[in-house]
Parts: sequence; structure tokens; C-alpha cells
Amino acid sequence: MKSQPKELVKQMLAGHRLSLARLISKVENRDKDLAEIMKLLFPHTGHAEVVGITGPPGAGKSTLVDRLTALYRAKGKRVAIVAVDPSSPFTGGAILGDRIRMQQHSGDRDVYIRSLGTRGKHGGLSHATKEVVLILDAAKFDVILVETAGVGQTELDILRLAQTVVVVLVPESGDSIQVMKAGLMEIADVFAVNKSDRPEADKLVKELITNSGLSDHDEHSWMMPVQKTEATRDVGITELSGLIADHQAYLTRSGKREVKKVEFLKNEVADILSERLSLSLAHQFETSSGKEVVQKLSRLEIDPYEAADLFSGI
Amino acid sequence: MKSQPKELVKQMLAGHRLSLARLISKVENRDKDLAEIMKLLFPHTGHAEVVGITGPPGAGKSTLVDRLTALYRAKGKRVAIVAVDPSSPFTGGAILGDRIRMQQHSGDRDVYIRSLGTRGKHGGLSHATKEVVLILDAAKFDVILVETAGVGQTELDILRLAQTVVVVLVPESGDSIQVMKAGLMEIADVFAVNKSDRPEADKLVKELITNSGLSDHDEHSWMMPVQKTEATRDVGITELSGLIADHQAYLTRSGKREVKKVEFLKNEVADILSERLSLSLAHQFETSSGKEVVQKLSRLEIDPYEAADLFSGI
Repeated sequence: MKSQPKELVKQMLAGHRLSLARLISKVENRDKDLAEIMKLLFPHTGHAEVVGITGPPGAGKSTLVDRLTALYRAKGKRVAIVAVDPSSPFTGGAILGDRIRMQQHSGDRDVYIRSLGTRGKHGGLSHATKEVVLILDAAKFDVILVETAGVGQTELDILRLAQTVVVVLVPESGDSIQVMKAGLMEIADVFAVNKSDRPEADKLVKELITNSGLSDHDEHSWMMPVQKTEATRDVGITELSGLIADHQAYLTRSGKREVKKVEFLKNEVADILSERLSLSLAHQFETSSGKEVVQKLSRLEIDPYEAADLFSGI
Repeated sequence: MKSQPKELVKQMLAGHRLSLARLISKVENRDKDLAEIMKLLFPHTGHAEVVGITGPPGAGKSTLVDRLTALYRAKGKRVAIVAVDPSSPFTGGAILGDRIRMQQHSGDRDVYIRSLGTRGKHGGLSHATKEVVLILDAAKFDVILVETAGVGQTELDILRLAQTVVVVLVPESGDSIQVMKAGLMEIADVFAVNKSDRPEADKLVKELITNSGLSDHDEHSWMMPVQKTEATRDVGITELSGLIADHQAYLTRSGKREVKKVEFLKNEVADILSERLSLSLAHQFETSSGKEVVQKLSRLEIDPYEAADLFSGI
């Protein structure tokens, strides 16, 4: 048998890109060897900076990610980009179109780009993304950029796995209101006002600064900075990467890096147990006693909470 | 103690609106009495038509819901409207603005309107919506209209609880592509092309008909109809409600009503167990042995899958 977990992980740790790609596919497909793979990988994690990039469609996130990547590469850092698209729950598709722009990095062995879409019922997208991040971390990428489009609940779940969250906005009417509404204010660490040559840019910057003032101030508080950028002209990117670095330093200084790490790992454990529950239940529904419970439920002889009592947890 | 579950459910079944509102709040707040409440309610469910209404923001969903409600009322049917807004995970807010338009029904005791937003960590929005639908069903509403905005994964989860899904679109460029991308084609039972006085309406109708032809045809297959509407001028609403009735008849005729009911109940059981897992885990993380496991995990001494083994299921 080729592709034994041990061999795959060994090759991946040695820098073999195809092995890396295969391991990520195993995460996407919820492979039976996942527990073994993660056991082998996990001791090698804990080094990468994980930066989430989000914002409304058309904000220029991909171009910004492209420019940041070039900048990190110039500093000799290895960069992985995970583009997550939760909006295609049926097709399993992902943000592929935008990826074409990244072709300038395609010959660079120290840049790895992967799109993730939703597949399967068991194990959500944020679970898969967390495990992909762990793999890329073990593969010794210095920076992992997790890009999500849109502002739904799934996207927010995904962003929680990042250490630093950059929210990209463009000067268009109503954008800042959308930010409030979507709860992005609460998870943003750095704001980028992209396409800042547009007339309304300063107004948006002002609004964001005013509203970010609402967060509480203690000695370890982080003053959410707002950076104007024009990704297509490479304007403000150095400053933006500086602010990301500032936030990373703040995480270490304040002790919040450890808090975030523990949260990440707790969430991963919860996701593993949740996936096991889902698989176990799908199996139990197919047994004769499981079918009997569902029939009783359907005939209103028992209620869903009683039925739940009749199924074992995991 | 006032508001005992038994008393509340009894009053709700007798048509007491405040008791109904309190029971729904208990679902939203994941009250400790929920299991008892659902046990008392559940035998009274199974009568309502549950219709999901979705579409992009600005498609005119609320006006359409308003017109459909007026039509159902004219036929003597009792109507409940659940407006679900998953895009506000932090504020707990919901689509309240649009609800103002519904004020024409506010004096009508046979129309009940409720907005649901995301609250709390344990128990997702689609879980709460399912239980609210069960309560409204027990409260003998003939039609329950579940309105969601947007096209994210959470919205699609919510729509799966509906028997009939109406997707509302407007003739604007790219709308039909969005429908494909978001997987709405797979869950739509009826399309409404609203604001159909706009020039591109016929083009959109044609596109939808062409694409819906892609679904498989067996003897029980449902040919997805497309209805042009102008909700603001009350045009096409009678026809739309006719198509919803056709689909409801189709569900009964084909045996798919029972299939959908069983799916709904299985999903409810899964959500209950998932919520229990989440609560149990949150508790276990706070125990001394749980903290020890998390510490080992954080020091990379064990991996997340091993840690999961150390926590009991539920």
C-alpha cells in the first residue's frame, strides 16, 4: 500500500508538496486515517502566524492577499493561502476564479495555495479549515493566510481560528453598517480600507475609528488600527503587514496568544466529538432499533427529546 | 411559581398569545424546561404547512410574505411568520425593520410574527427555528412562513426544515448565477421572479426554466415552476400561492411529505444531542481533569484526537 499515513506525513515534513496536497485532501474527505495523521503531525505545529482575511465580495481581498504574499516572500517567509468559500454547500466549489491572479506565485515552492469548499454532511467547513491550518503549520509555513468571502455565521466560525483578523472594506455606502450588522467589529483586529483612492475613503476610515473606540480599554487592550490601501497599486501594503506584525507582537506580550491557542484546540476537540456524534447517529438511524425509535417519533408516540435519550451519545 | 411549563403549554394550546411568545423565548434562551415543554407540545403537532421563503436582500421577500399572508387570511387560514436572520451572530438582532411593513396584520389575532436571531453558543439557529416551528404547529397555525435573508450555509440549513421552499429573485444581472453558486437550485421548489415589470424579467424566467430542466425526471418528479410576481402591486400572488398548494399536494401524493417529516425529526434529534454534547464539553473543560487534558494538548503532549478520546461523549 502506498500513501500510508506515516510515509505521507514524513514526506510532507520533508517538504514534499504532493504529500501535503494529499494530506489536505484526506482532511477534506474526512479520511479514516485522520486521527493517525493528526497524531503524527501535531507535535510539529505551533509556529505559524495564522492571519484571517475577510470582507464583502469585491473588496479586493484576493489582490490584497497577493500583495501581502509578495511582501512576506521578499522577507524570506514561506506563505500558505487557504481560500475558504462556504457559500457553495452543494457543489463543493470554492473561490477558484480569483486564484488565477495568484499565478505569479505558482512557480514559487515556498507559496502554497489551496481552496476549500463544503463537502459532506459530517464535519463542518471550519473543522476542516482548522485541520488544514494544523497541517500547513506542521509543514513549516511561516504565515498562513485564511481568506473567506462574505460575512455569514460559517465565515465567522472560520475566522475565529485565526490569530489576527484583517477585515477588508471598500468606500461604498452602507459598508460600515454591514460591518456592524455582521458582527465583524467584534472579531476584527485590523481594518484595511481598500480602493482608498475613492472619494468616500476618509469618511469610512473615520467611521471605523469612531466605532472601534467602543471596545473596552484595559492595559492590554488593542487599539484596532485602520489602514488605507490600494492593493492594485501596492499602496499601504507594507503598512498593513506592519500592523499585522504589531498585532502578533501584542498577542505574545498580552498572553492572548496562549488563550487563542487553547481556544483553537478546544474547538478542534469539540469538532472531533461533534463529527463522531454525527457519524454515530447516522449509523444508529440505520439499525433496526434506531428505525423503530424514528417510527415512534413520526407517529408522535414519543417526542424528539425522549428519542434523543434513546440514542447513545457517541 | 408562575409560568410552569404545563400551565404555559395549556394556555398556548388554548390560544393565549403571551404564552406562545414566552414559549418561543424559552426556545431562544435554551431554557432548562425545554424537554418538558416539547414533550407536552409534540403530540399536538403535524398539521401546519411549513413554507420557506428566501432570496437575496432587496428581492422583496417581506412584501411577498405580506401579500401571501393577506391571501391566506382571506381564506380563513391562520398564519405564523418566522423571520430568521443568521447574519447577526453577536447582537442577537433580527430583521426587524422589514417587519414594520407587516403592521397591517398587527391587530389580527390569527397572524403571529416573530423574528429570530442568533443567540448563545449552544444550539444553533436552525435548531431553534425547528422548535419554534413545532410550537407554532402545536398552536394550530395553518401556514408557517419561514423567511430567511441571504444564501449562506446556515440559511440553507434552516430552509431544509420547510416542506416547500420558495426562492424569490429579481431581474438583475448575475442573480441566476448567484442561485447556482449558492446551491439554491437544489432546494427550491418554486421560483418567484419578483419586480417582474423590470425589462430583464423574461430573460431570468427563461434561465430558471432552462436550468431547472436539469433535475431528474421520474414519475413522481416535481417540475419546478417559475412565477412572475409584482408583490407591491399584488400581481401574481394568487398564482404563487396556487403553486405552493400544488407542491403541498405533490408532497402528499408522492409520499415525500412523510420523508420530509422523518428528516425534520431526525435532524431535531441530532440537534438535541449536539447541544447536549456542546454543554457537556463546556462543563468538562472546566473540571480539573478536563483542564489537565487541555494543558497537555496545549503543550503538544497529546493531539486533539487523543484529547477527544479522553472526554466522554455526552
